[in-house]
Amino acid sequence: MSDQDFLQQAIDLANRSVDEGGGPFGAVIVQQGSIIGRGNNRVTLDNDPTAHAEMQAIRDACRKENNFSLSDCVLYTSCEPCPMCMAAIYWARIARVVFAASGEDASRAGFDDRWIARELCQPYTERSLPVAQCVCEDFDSSFRKWMALADKIPY
Amino acid sequence: MSDQDFLQQAIDLANRSVDEGGGPFGAVIVQQGSIIGRGNNRVTLDNDPTAHAEMQAIRDACRKENNFSLSDCVLYTSCEPCPMCMAAIYWARIARVVFAASGEDASRAGFDDRWIARELCQPYTERSLPVAQCVCEDFDSSFRKWMALADKIPY
Repeated sequence: MSDQDFLQQAIDLANRSVDEGGGPFGAVIVQQGSIIGRGNNRVTLDNDPTAHAEMQAIRDACRKENNFSLSDCVLYTSCEPCPMCMAAIYWARIARVVFAASGEDASRAGFDDRWIARELCQPYTERSLPVAQCVCEDFDSSFRKWMALADKIPY
Repeated sequence: MSDQDFLQQAIDLANRSVDEGGGPFGAVIVQQGSIIGRGNNRVTLDNDPTAHAEMQAIRDACRKENNFSLSDCVLYTSCEPCPMCMAAIYWARIARVVFAASGEDASRAGFDDRWIARELCQPYTERSLPVAQCVCEDFDSSFRKWMALADKIPY
């Protein structure tokens, strides 16, 4: 199967998602030519703002692989990933991303995430969301505890 | 309870997380002075690269509120949020964020996410991850289907 074929699977999931009351987004994760994860947007269905198609597909694939790393996988998504999904893609060590519709297309359908990308690339003082560090004595206690562990799994 | 008190709850969760085999991160979500969501890092425990403390706390609070929006809530986290969590915070419409340790502190403990922030602020051509648009005839079929829906929930 070609990139085009796998992308069509993601688009089909996006269409089925709308039929089932979800958002119009779908994604599949492919490992060595086989789909090992699928996801569609379930934000309003599950009341979960993190339930984007790509996130769902990553979780699905990781569950099946029993692994938090998908470094030999390609993600195909019906639409250009938002910053949350793109960062999750980096955390999952996915090797390559292919998308169909652009963020601009999504924006025309009422799904604009470009303001989030703009915010993330600004210093905190320039953002609309107030973010503040509050230093307390105990601030790094969990890191010290972690670093003292003998059997930790780094990731 | 003050910011400091709620932040301490997040730090306590981070410490408990290490005791229970999770990552050294914790977060709580507060609505009108009450904690309505809690999370700790479960990436390696659950084989879920999206299971950061802030994501878990957002999902927990949304589940309890039956709402995908937390616009009257403050998020307290033991460590500066990574770009995935920060974008999720925007999607959840959280009003304010308070953190204890910095991303630099996390990096010294082996948890570096600053490379992801740098990647996200670059054009695709400058990133280490290959991302490509593959245009197909069907690219916006799910958006057209969505826009034709009478009873859609915008978000």
